[in-house]
Amino acid sequence: MPRAESRGCVFCSIIAGDVAAHWVLDTADVVAFLDHRPLFKGHVLVMPRAHVATLRDLAGPLRDELFARTQEVAAAVQDAMGAQGSFVAMNNVVSQSVPHLHVHAVPRTKGDGLRGFFWPRHRYDDDEEAAAVAALIRGLLAAQ
Amino acid sequence: MPRAESRGCVFCSIIAGDVAAHWVLDTADVVAFLDHRPLFKGHVLVMPRAHVATLRDLAGPLRDELFARTQEVAAAVQDAMGAQGSFVAMNNVVSQSVPHLHVHAVPRTKGDGLRGFFWPRHRYDDDEEAAAVAALIRGLLAAQ
Repeated sequence: MPRAESRGCVFCSIIAGDVAAHWVLDTADVVAFLDHRPLFKGHVLVMPRAHVATLRDLAGPLRDELFARTQEVAAAVQDAMGAQGSFVAMNNVVSQSVPHLHVHAVPRTKGDGLRGFFWPRHRYDDDEEAAAVAALIRGLLAAQ
Repeated sequence: MPRAESRGCVFCSIIAGDVAAHWVLDTADVVAFLDHRPLFKGHVLVMPRAHVATLRDLAGPLRDELFARTQEVAAAVQDAMGAQGSFVAMNNVVSQSVPHLHVHAVPRTKGDGLRGFFWPRHRYDDDEEAAAVAALIRGLLAAQ
């Protein structure tokens, strides 16, 4: 269950006002502030005010609200920085530096050096392996 | 305006059934299939059936539906692959290989080699610069 605050969570400390941050959005359910070590300047973290650990822990109404605000923040970040596009991402568990769900909204410009970002890519051994993987995921989705 | 189909869009061709893919989800408004060159096996692309180019072009109801389905797919991908977590991301314009909005749902496991994924990070020159950037983004959000 989401809690209002989690002891030792730096994002909860920021939200509580105990740790400083450069805020960009402060609403009832969703907040956003600058990442203090940005991928690029203007890199914002959007998150639920309540301490929710990962995407799968997020209740439906809060999920709708989080991504509604994320859509607005990503557009504002792009326009504020005069960027051509945006990168919007979340790490769940692995590579998640703070276990309080946060969506990165990062301005992107061609030639900004993140060219190799989505690499290396891999290939399935054969079409049968890909079909088996898809069937496994489909099965879990149908059981949800 | 979103169109039902866009000529020359490979995702629209997959959705129309003209190009093969390994599907994992087929609903009225949102579809998902395997990325054919996965970051890791089990890497799925979740997207609106209609041709919407980027996150900022997405109407509210379809946005809610897309992220509801993405939440389910990310959980299924993680569990199907026996992974510890997930990476959920979208590229808008820059690094967006196909201009039909798609959310990557990628299984993540510690030590999988994506350690340096969110690097290099940078710093603001000083606190004043960060404050100015935050104010710029806040201003655009307030004007929306």
